Amino acid sequence: MAKYVYLFSQGNGSMKELLGGKGANLAEMTNLGMPVPQGFTITTEACTKYYEDGAMVSPEIEAEIYDSLKQLEEMAGKKFGDPNNPLLVSVRSGARASMPGMMDTILNLGLNDEVVVGLANLTNNERFAYDSYRRFIQMYSDVVMELPKKQFEKIIDDIKSKKGVELDTDLDINDLKEMVVAFKAFYKEQVGSDFPSDPREQLMGSVKAVFRSWNNERAIYYRRMNDIPSSWGTAVNVQLMVFGNMGDDSGTGVAFTRDPATGENSLFGEYLINAQGEDVVAGIRTPQPISQLKETMPEIYNEFASIAKRLEDHYKDMQDMEFTIEKGKLYMLQTRNGKRTATAALKIACDLVDEGKITKEQALIMVDPKQLDALLHPQFDANAIKEATPAASALPASPGAACGRVVFTAREAIDVNQTGEPVILVRLETSPEDIEGMHVSKGILTARGGMTSHAAVVARGMGICCVSGCSAVNINEEACQFTLNGEVVRSGDFISLDGSTGNIYLEKIPTVAATISGYFGRFMGWADEVKSLEVRTNADTPSDANQAIGFGAQGIGLCRTEHMFFEADRIAAMREMIVSKTPEQRISALKKLLPFQQSDFEGIYEAMQGRPVTIRLLDPPLHEFLPTSEKDINALAQEMNLTAEDIKTVITELHEFNPMMGHRGCRLAVSYPEIAQMQATAIIQAAVAVKKRTGMNVVPEIMIPLIGDVKELNFVKDIIKSTADEIIKISGIELSYQIGTMIEIPRAALMADEIAKNAEFFSFGTNDLTQMTYGFSRDDAGKFLEDYYSKNIFESDPFTKLDQNGVGKLVATAVVLGRKARPDIHLGICGEHGGDPSSVEFCHRTGLDYVSCSPFRVPIARLAAAQAQIKYPR
Amino acid sequence: MAKYVYLFSQGNGSMKELLGGKGANLAEMTNLGMPVPQGFTITTEACTKYYEDGAMVSPEIEAEIYDSLKQLEEMAGKKFGDPNNPLLVSVRSGARASMPGMMDTILNLGLNDEVVVGLANLTNNERFAYDSYRRFIQMYSDVVMELPKKQFEKIIDDIKSKKGVELDTDLDINDLKEMVVAFKAFYKEQVGSDFPSDPREQLMGSVKAVFRSWNNERAIYYRRMNDIPSSWGTAVNVQLMVFGNMGDDSGTGVAFTRDPATGENSLFGEYLINAQGEDVVAGIRTPQPISQLKETMPEIYNEFASIAKRLEDHYKDMQDMEFTIEKGKLYMLQTRNGKRTATAALKIACDLVDEGKITKEQALIMVDPKQLDALLHPQFDANAIKEATPAASALPASPGAACGRVVFTAREAIDVNQTGEPVILVRLETSPEDIEGMHVSKGILTARGGMTSHAAVVARGMGICCVSGCSAVNINEEACQFTLNGEVVRSGDFISLDGSTGNIYLEKIPTVAATISGYFGRFMGWADEVKSLEVRTNADTPSDANQAIGFGAQGIGLCRTEHMFFEADRIAAMREMIVSKTPEQRISALKKLLPFQQSDFEGIYEAMQGRPVTIRLLDPPLHEFLPTSEKDINALAQEMNLTAEDIKTVITELHEFNPMMGHRGCRLAVSYPEIAQMQATAIIQAAVAVKKRTGMNVVPEIMIPLIGDVKELNFVKDIIKSTADEIIKISGIELSYQIGTMIEIPRAALMADEIAKNAEFFSFGTNDLTQMTYGFSRDDAGKFLEDYYSKNIFESDPFTKLDQNGVGKLVATAVVLGRKARPDIHLGICGEHGGDPSSVEFCHRTGLDYVSCSPFRVPIARLAAAQAQIKYPR
Repeated sequence: MAKYVYLFSQGNGSMKELLGGKGANLAEMTNLGMPVPQGFTITTEACTKYYEDGAMVSPEIEAEIYDSLKQLEEMAGKKFGDPNNPLLVSVRSGARASMPGMMDTILNLGLNDEVVVGLANLTNNERFAYDSYRRFIQMYSDVVMELPKKQFEKIIDDIKSKKGVELDTDLDINDLKEMVVAFKAFYKEQVGSDFPSDPREQLMGSVKAVFRSWNNERAIYYRRMNDIPSSWGTAVNVQLMVFGNMGDDSGTGVAFTRDPATGENSLFGEYLINAQGEDVVAGIRTPQPISQLKETMPEIYNEFASIAKRLEDHYKDMQDMEFTIEKGKLYMLQTRNGKRTATAALKIACDLVDEGKITKEQALIMVDPKQLDALLHPQFDANAIKEATPAASALPASPGAACGRVVFTAREAIDVNQTGEPVILVRLETSPEDIEGMHVSKGILTARGGMTSHAAVVARGMGICCVSGCSAVNINEEACQFTLNGEVVRSGDFISLDGSTGNIYLEKIPTVAATISGYFGRFMGWADEVKSLEVRTNADTPSDANQAIGFGAQGIGLCRTEHMFFEADRIAAMREMIVSKTPEQRISALKKLLPFQQSDFEGIYEAMQGRPVTIRLLDPPLHEFLPTSEKDINALAQEMNLTAEDIKTVITELHEFNPMMGHRGCRLAVSYPEIAQMQATAIIQAAVAVKKRTGMNVVPEIMIPLIGDVKELNFVKDIIKSTADEIIKISGIELSYQIGTMIEIPRAALMADEIAKNAEFFSFGTNDLTQMTYGFSRDDAGKFLEDYYSKNIFESDPFTKLDQNGVGKLVATAVVLGRKARPDIHLGICGEHGGDPSSVEFCHRTGLDYVSCSPFRVPIARLAAAQAQIKYPR
Repeated sequence: MAKYVYLFSQGNGSMKELLGGKGANLAEMTNLGMPVPQGFTITTEACTKYYEDGAMVSPEIEAEIYDSLKQLEEMAGKKFGDPNNPLLVSVRSGARASMPGMMDTILNLGLNDEVVVGLANLTNNERFAYDSYRRFIQMYSDVVMELPKKQFEKIIDDIKSKKGVELDTDLDINDLKEMVVAFKAFYKEQVGSDFPSDPREQLMGSVKAVFRSWNNERAIYYRRMNDIPSSWGTAVNVQLMVFGNMGDDSGTGVAFTRDPATGENSLFGEYLINAQGEDVVAGIRTPQPISQLKETMPEIYNEFASIAKRLEDHYKDMQDMEFTIEKGKLYMLQTRNGKRTATAALKIACDLVDEGKITKEQALIMVDPKQLDALLHPQFDANAIKEATPAASALPASPGAACGRVVFTAREAIDVNQTGEPVILVRLETSPEDIEGMHVSKGILTARGGMTSHAAVVARGMGICCVSGCSAVNINEEACQFTLNGEVVRSGDFISLDGSTGNIYLEKIPTVAATISGYFGRFMGWADEVKSLEVRTNADTPSDANQAIGFGAQGIGLCRTEHMFFEADRIAAMREMIVSKTPEQRISALKKLLPFQQSDFEGIYEAMQGRPVTIRLLDPPLHEFLPTSEKDINALAQEMNLTAEDIKTVITELHEFNPMMGHRGCRLAVSYPEIAQMQATAIIQAAVAVKKRTGMNVVPEIMIPLIGDVKELNFVKDIIKSTADEIIKISGIELSYQIGTMIEIPRAALMADEIAKNAEFFSFGTNDLTQMTYGFSRDDAGKFLEDYYSKNIFESDPFTKLDQNGVGKLVATAVVLGRKARPDIHLGICGEHGGDPSSVEFCHRTGLDYVSCSPFRVPIARLAAAQAQIKYPR
């Protein structure tokens, strides 16, 4: 029979899947003899069963919970609901992976009108008892019953204004009692029944609320962003309450064993005296740095510092800990591997290796590849920043520089971002509801909250620049403006933030890209030593190519030739080619394009200095090159010596109902072999020219897109081959080249054996392959995919994270068939998945030779490839 | 070592793959001791090698040809190129499957300026010799050198007009000599060298021309229409010439052992005295019926009749024979299983069974399922035809009735057909260049040619109505009109044809559908006894359903629900639903649609009388239901109490770049569960009502379209199930229903095991599956697929004939995975492939339970299913 509830003393740190991260670590700390308030964990399997049973806690699980509760009562020597000696507990969620701020927590559970009196007597602190009670009612109403938070805040505000005070702490015991009565009345009005006074009812209600919260919108969104499957479920931790709000010898705090922003090896954190944990995390009061504790409570500090060191040594990673001091006694409420900035992650990983605590492989596994993104994002232009003066400075909560237009709500952030404008989200403080808006922002500025506030933690996790706790900023949300040092900044104005210094600039400061050096360079060197996948880049210009080489790209996996045709001096010839009526006219227009195309390739070959370059033949439908506005059509007509009607006729002829599945890719080369011929000429002539000029070896890899049948491939291949061989013969030098194909049509994957006989390489175009395999148009799916996420049908965007079950099956089939037909076939991927870590791991496991991604994703892919090799050696 | 050339005496009738149909049958007749002019066959493998070698006849094959030629010379006692005793041969193509008129033939090969003199002396018939020579130059120039035919005709016309005569036969020997000189001069002018006088050069040129003709446009088109792979290649038959044009004791003819139009068991055919074979087939002179031969040459007739009987008994099928009489001696030039009308095919099959010559299974295999189509096509409305008076009557060349607009060229036929108008093609005589135009015509009328003319043979093969040899019709192609009995009929006027009587009507006569009875009924009964596949129909209305039941449908495999929404009284509610802003508004609009939808289903259930009915939920994107013209938009706005801008906003919101891969199918039900709910309600309430009213058992099969993931399926399934179960509970009666899914997205096929766990049936939607697997939009592919056919990349339209290699692999995968997860899963196909014989065979082999096709294809599918079972018993 399954066991659904574990006392902390029954578990251990390796049981994360079952107990969740928090539960497993509480059990581990208990085993290590650390001062942990005791409790029990309801397993993730109970959560899964809850959903399987139709959102019901089965009697068998309920019985196990009460049985553990009884054991907890015995351990604590207190009784649930006993006014004379009451047992109070917290109920917290705890999934396998840490999901900070995503799940709901209930504190002080077990209080009712009788118990609160007993608690007051017992602690001799009536104020504390009623403050705890009103907090409990508030949390329970919010989390379990989903009553509007604002109404409770309004009741508090009403009492405060009636009394003429500003701070909660200015309220006296009678005010708190009045508040409890008012809260309960509001509860009854809304729910239709009394606030539950039975602690068991309170407990079961809370457990169910935690289970439910696993599928709230914020949690679904967080999981989607962090690749966490919904099947994992969350555990529930029921723990004896300890109180940081019992007076000035009490307090609560959060600390890291190293600085999560810089990685510096010293205890880093914050605490608040006479407060409950929620006060620190929510960022409502600005807390003290942990160093202060050393002075005010040196013994407590020393005890905590020693525990922190033990924990880090034990877990061999930087720890993020929560603690509470109750009347001068320290309790540990949580430890976990701490979230950190990318900079800190690299420094910590390198330091831990240097300290001899971990191996290079362990260090590589430790860093989330996606985090490196933050280091690759723009910094301020060095000259521009010299001349800029910060208007204020606040906490450097998440590093990197950002510049964008001010918005005041998450919604506005999303809307403005969709127009293509950069966005800075400015908030009093952020809350989990803001997640989506934060994600699309270049930077976040908050007026309240510390380095461990919601905004700071989430921004660091997302790699987004954040400056927090800037009390000088006065926000007026309704007027859509804030003032800073007397200056008014309105919605839509540009500001700039430096998340590494905390500086705020009321002006537009240009940003520049970062480079790889220091810890970053050392760490990436380890990744390159380990990985077996080659990492190439998608680059269409010498400048992209240079950028990518700086980030460690080993070649170009996808050079799109069509972008080259959009430039002003080329588009005219391209359009002339498109409106041609005969092959002769077309050839004459293509002749004009040839020198442009050839010089583009020469530039790219030279930038790549002998590294492989895969060039894809023209792919998009021709109508994309034609103008759409009346004005542009007239201009083109004049230029071409045609009438506007002529141009419109061509546009109409080229119109397609579903251009994604229309006349594009190799289908263009089948209809107009002249185009492929011109491109092959440019590719080979450029290679000959560069080889002659520089002596560099150039081996162009010519890639035919959108193949679905081997006869299609052979038709285009024959054109390329005869063109290329002729040029090489004339050139008088030796030059080798390869001809391969994209695998992006499902049929190509299914027929990969036949195709491989005639292709020297495959490059999986997983963007199109995903579109066709799902029957999703990427341009249109956005409209309905939101419904799929919110209804929990999809957990991730298949265009971002490769669908390993469906699309992956086609890729794997093609790899097996392809290698069977041509054992030395070179296999890669050039869809956007090439820069997604989980997809890179899939490519490694499936036996590809390389991945290719945008220049900025190259370091991410390198690390992901190294991690894949460590997890699945080959 | 491969053998590439076989003397007729070395082959036999079973060697069709190697020798082609004509060659194998010539060998077989030789073995049977029949009077066959001797010769040899160059194999189909030689053709394949010709293409592999880059359009070259290898020296090894050339040597074999000359070797066989030498043996032929010995047999004949004549020598190639010897003026004193010349060997003359014909060169004919002969593929594995008969492709009448598709390939080119060369007669009288071996003649040159010297040999023609010898031939004249030897035959004592100078006129015959020069007539043969000029014909040879003409054919060789046309077929081998591709010189324009018309120029030769012009030379003849010039000579005739100079001489003032009308008929070729009025030309004397000097005219013919002049013609030869003129032909050769024209040849030299065009080709730049003399006409080849070396018979060996003539022979090799002709062999290559036959090989080349395998890939001419007509052949490619014919193969595509008839599912003949291009890899087969054609054989070449080189045969001693016999001459039907040596005087009045000579002649040539074509005959069938039974009437190819009716199937009547009596010798049927035509012949021409003093003519070469091409004269009969080309339909230039109108020939005599074969019965005439009995009177004019009774011995020859009796010999021929006895050979014909032997051949039919030998091949156990109706034979189509060509013969030549040379100076009173009969020669057999060809025999093959004869093409016949569908009516004849059924009668012959039944008769052969009754005559004890073949089994029912052999009879079933004998008939091409596609041919049945002709019997299902319209006949004249019985009342309308009573009042109609034929303007003329001619040969009933291919049965069926047709009514359409007159066109005079194949091109015009294609153009007018594309506007949706029915077309009657009126020609002096047809030629292979007209094939495409003939294919799109409802009927064909020719002024010249007999029952075995090109028009007649091809029309019968296509199942298209044809009246031929109507000499009363005077065509003026330039004026785009013809006169008949003084009446002028212009391009675009309506006429009607009866291909069974030969009647021509200068008026529009309505046509009606046919029914299955007589031989047809008996034959289809055998098919039903044999087949194991169930045959259902795609039907959206009770009238379609009735039609299909008449044609033997066993259920509905696809009832599309969207067509029901387009009717005038429903579209308003549908549009109201679409422009709804809230679920409430949407539900209110859906409530209006419910009664319509329910009564539709009641009608269909009643028509199907307890047979299974598979109903697909709403599939197309919603924008398809909205108006597009300004006028309609304004009308809708007024109706809906909205502004035109409101409507346009909705239209813009619903616009998609690739609607085929957009918000449609089950994706609509995910976004708007109310729609699925309404449809489930209508489906179940209708079933309850019909069951209560009639006592009939109704088991609705509810089909969810466009599934790509099992979670999608489950989401929609849950809506349907809870809706249906509630209604059934309330109804108080028992009703079962099934929920299944389309497999039309590649991913669904790949994930079929997971999906099958939650679906009671799969219906393969091979239209969409083909689109996604190829990445071809069906609406757009037409534009470039022509390039694919003409460049021999594709041999057939994947939307017509299921691509068994690619799409079929997905279907087979889904069948295996689906059955593994749910052994009793019911599997079918409802794409248009369900009515295509080769695709039906694939479905049978792949283990599907049923196919579903349009009502008119049901008999075709039934026969194809029976044939599949005979070929692949299961």
